[in-house]
Amino acid sequence: MKPLEYMAVADEAMTRIKKGAFLTAQTGERLNTMTIGWAMIGFVWQKPMFMVAVRDSRYTYAILENAADFTVSIPSGDLHDALMYCGTKSGRDVDKFTECGLKTANGRSVISPIIDTPGIHYECKIQYKTAMDPAFLDAAYDKLYPEKDYHTLYFGEIQSCYEL
Amino acid sequence: MKPLEYMAVADEAMTRIKKGAFLTAQTGERLNTMTIGWAMIGFVWQKPMFMVAVRDSRYTYAILENAADFTVSIPSGDLHDALMYCGTKSGRDVDKFTECGLKTANGRSVISPIIDTPGIHYECKIQYKTAMDPAFLDAAYDKLYPEKDYHTLYFGEIQSCYEL
Repeated sequence: MKPLEYMAVADEAMTRIKKGAFLTAQTGERLNTMTIGWAMIGFVWQKPMFMVAVRDSRYTYAILENAADFTVSIPSGDLHDALMYCGTKSGRDVDKFTECGLKTANGRSVISPIIDTPGIHYECKIQYKTAMDPAFLDAAYDKLYPEKDYHTLYFGEIQSCYEL
Repeated sequence: MKPLEYMAVADEAMTRIKKGAFLTAQTGERLNTMTIGWAMIGFVWQKPMFMVAVRDSRYTYAILENAADFTVSIPSGDLHDALMYCGTKSGRDVDKFTECGLKTANGRSVISPIIDTPGIHYECKIQYKTAMDPAFLDAAYDKLYPEKDYHTLYFGEIQSCYEL
């Protein structure tokens, strides 16, 4: 494990996230991972901060609403098939970890585990969340929400950033 | 003017923003700039996105609520005095541009001008905004809001990113 400076790798992280990364969250015995392609990284409320967006139709949303934290695992290897699977199937119906052969590893500083794969990992403690209000979204984005299942934006303080 | 890739310079931009940068917005004849120290950069809603946070007590807030866009000018030179002034005085009371000897230059792709100074500049079109709801903010941050003047988070699609 090699510690990384969270912002120094933001460019590489975002480039890879756009091709797919794993957002993993756990609360109690409920654990799930899903594929994300969007994120923001920066410094807000005097803290290093990572933002993810999750539609309220997602099983991960149900977990995040009760979780204290989340992790983002950005694989350096080719996990295309697993990313496709975890972006289209629901953790309500299948065990994505078994189906994709994904292993988890304990978070260093959060309850949620990471996906145990080479790449960049962010561990984030939820500090703020906001459910999107479409009244304040530019109408050009309506096409992203045909089912009206808007995202909730979760802001997590970055507790650890490292490479496996 | 040298075009920059918005994410490739995110690390340098955030490092400097933490020491102070100019957030500038214009609507009609109302123009103001203020100092920011927080920001997020990333990719959301399938677009390059820049997030800024503005307290509702700010004159810039009154402008942004009616503006289509904003710019962020991140000086490479030492503008410490101007950044201090623009972070503590209100554009309701003073003309910050005159007082600080700050010149503006037209935005390349937005209505709001930039601060005409060497550094990194982001021009952003507002796509989404959300007023913070303290009910969803970790109580550890209460100390940032003794006056209860919470931030509104503005998400602007990055239209241009360049160096002067």
